[in-house]
Amino acid sequence: MADTRGSRAGDEAAGFEVGPTFRRFSQKDDIFCRSFWDPEIRSDRSDMFYETYRTPRMKWRDVEGFTQRDYAVRNASWHVTDIFAEMREQGDRREGFLDPYSVLRDGPGVRVHVDSPEAGAREVKHVAKTFGADLVGITGYDDRWVYTHAYSRDGESEKVQELPADLPHVIVIAQAMDLDLIGTVPSALSGTATGMGYSRDTLVLLALSQYIINLGYRAVPTMNDTALAIPLAIKAGLGEYGRHGLLITPEFGPRVRLGKIFTDFPLAHDRPRRFGVRETCEVCRRCTDACPAKAIAGGPPSDAVHNRSNIPGVTKWTTDAERCFRFWSNQNTDCSICVRVCPYNRDYGKWRNRLWQRLAGGPLRRLALWLDRRSGRGERRSPKEWWPRGQTSVEKAG
Amino acid sequence: MADTRGSRAGDEAAGFEVGPTFRRFSQKDDIFCRSFWDPEIRSDRSDMFYETYRTPRMKWRDVEGFTQRDYAVRNASWHVTDIFAEMREQGDRREGFLDPYSVLRDGPGVRVHVDSPEAGAREVKHVAKTFGADLVGITGYDDRWVYTHAYSRDGESEKVQELPADLPHVIVIAQAMDLDLIGTVPSALSGTATGMGYSRDTLVLLALSQYIINLGYRAVPTMNDTALAIPLAIKAGLGEYGRHGLLITPEFGPRVRLGKIFTDFPLAHDRPRRFGVRETCEVCRRCTDACPAKAIAGGPPSDAVHNRSNIPGVTKWTTDAERCFRFWSNQNTDCSICVRVCPYNRDYGKWRNRLWQRLAGGPLRRLALWLDRRSGRGERRSPKEWWPRGQTSVEKAG
Repeated sequence: MADTRGSRAGDEAAGFEVGPTFRRFSQKDDIFCRSFWDPEIRSDRSDMFYETYRTPRMKWRDVEGFTQRDYAVRNASWHVTDIFAEMREQGDRREGFLDPYSVLRDGPGVRVHVDSPEAGAREVKHVAKTFGADLVGITGYDDRWVYTHAYSRDGESEKVQELPADLPHVIVIAQAMDLDLIGTVPSALSGTATGMGYSRDTLVLLALSQYIINLGYRAVPTMNDTALAIPLAIKAGLGEYGRHGLLITPEFGPRVRLGKIFTDFPLAHDRPRRFGVRETCEVCRRCTDACPAKAIAGGPPSDAVHNRSNIPGVTKWTTDAERCFRFWSNQNTDCSICVRVCPYNRDYGKWRNRLWQRLAGGPLRRLALWLDRRSGRGERRSPKEWWPRGQTSVEKAG
Repeated sequence: MADTRGSRAGDEAAGFEVGPTFRRFSQKDDIFCRSFWDPEIRSDRSDMFYETYRTPRMKWRDVEGFTQRDYAVRNASWHVTDIFAEMREQGDRREGFLDPYSVLRDGPGVRVHVDSPEAGAREVKHVAKTFGADLVGITGYDDRWVYTHAYSRDGESEKVQELPADLPHVIVIAQAMDLDLIGTVPSALSGTATGMGYSRDTLVLLALSQYIINLGYRAVPTMNDTALAIPLAIKAGLGEYGRHGLLITPEFGPRVRLGKIFTDFPLAHDRPRRFGVRETCEVCRRCTDACPAKAIAGGPPSDAVHNRSNIPGVTKWTTDAERCFRFWSNQNTDCSICVRVCPYNRDYGKWRNRLWQRLAGGPLRRLALWLDRRSGRGERRSPKEWWPRGQTSVEKAG
């Protein structure tokens, strides 16, 4: 087991409060795994939810944002990630979601010299950006966030965690999700932002891991599998933890998908970055109020858990994953209302939004929140308007 | 066979001169295929050229731009495309290079209504951009540019062309290549721009084809396989033909990788776009002069062919692929000197480069070329400087 004292020592800077009741998480308890093995979660609705990612709906709907075209683009955006997820299903692997990605080529057997961990970090970040990464941070291995067990869809049960415990560094990658698509939440259309985030993640994770392996080191590319991404991302300096239980980044707000690579390539670690999110979330309830499933905490951070899908012993805003996922199943697509309404969900390419973030990061945050509410930002955008000149009608051809 | 008279009627607008000696091309005669079956092209050097895309060199070099790190990043950039190329090798398919990509999911069996070909074209372009396409154009099927035969690496021989002839439209996608990497040509490092172009192409081609199939139509995603991309791209309005035999686009100059999707989704066609490239290439010899292999035409367009790797009966600037590829083999990586030195190789995000393009498109093109030469643009950038703070030394670890 790697020495993680160094990492734990950084808890305060990251804003982590981990208590004596802490217990590591098994992926089996993740709500998506439970929706297969746990009769409390699994339903005809949840089966249908997954099925319609794969096959077109037989009964086409004419509800804006949920037409055949909306599902068509959402499902197509998942295509590349799906191919990788299903490529090794015969071997009980669902790569990117339950198992790490396999890297194609072996390394050279000898290691390229790295001048210093700082130089290594600069190099890896430069290459990651060249491969299309939007954000890159680096932190230390910390077994608390690694799943005790992986999950087998063949057996619908736990299986051995294959991640070696002797890879001391974690590279965390964040890919931005499309702002316009997120604006159309709730809709099947908006799931395209999720699918594209994963597809782009897959490309970067695989290419960067192959790069490290080509230099003679080890690298294990993981996406939703193997470990909790958010604590690692916070430690790696990518952002802060929000009330909705998501990472909030300075560059894209909560609009990111995460991936992580475990490696022994020499790397200096980044420091957690605070920019006032915690203090803003303390006085903001936009996500809590907007969540139709009432799944988001309205009170202060706490270590109380709603059910087995929450990790015990961590004081934080904790979302009720059961309520959240039930809503997903009922509306038959993933939901990101909390992302859409979050005041940090902005285009930071624009100076006035960068200015807003600075305002929200200081004593005038209540003014910033008032301005946000007044501006109409975060209101739902019509999915029909996302499409060029309508064309959302459906019709069976002769 | 589809009626291609409509397409041929547009030859003049596209600047095509196709004469009576025209004969369709078989992929077997492509220089990359010849480098396997043709003893005139195949050599230890060419075998090594391919081998070092897959496995790290055993003898590490210390030549700037050709170190282990440079090869490591180049090969990693090809990783995702390689996975797809090798996924169905057992079935004698090399997808993306010798065979079309396979699309994962079946369609619904009924077709979504499309208001008009114009609306269909707007829709497909919008979705393609959402999936990460840099440029999208649409043209009609034209069998002249489709390979008579595909090529089998198993048998090292021709095999049946599997593209159906009843898909009337072609969507052409162009992905920009990284300007800074192209600046380091010649180098193994610069091949990273090629690999990333293909990897991003793969993602868009697969996702967009799956989208069309999800709407009940047919779509065949192809990259370097199945058909000549450049004539289709010109017809689809993506750019003009340059002296170096490459497509020159207004947005990225010659710095693009192409892919194309054959489909029966209702689509209006784009028109060829002229912006003065032909006239500029007529008075410019930058690529001809810079090519170390002397492979690029110095004279006017002609229908003379250098060898079997040229298509007969088309009057154009014709490159000697044998000389070109021999140089690639000898330097052990792909070369893009002609791309680097091309005066159109600029960052058109900058207004002064857009202004330059306008100047080059008019009667002052000789002034534009003189300014280009004076500016130093197109000079080789040190590969070492591409890397953050050096670190190109190699060393075997203990």
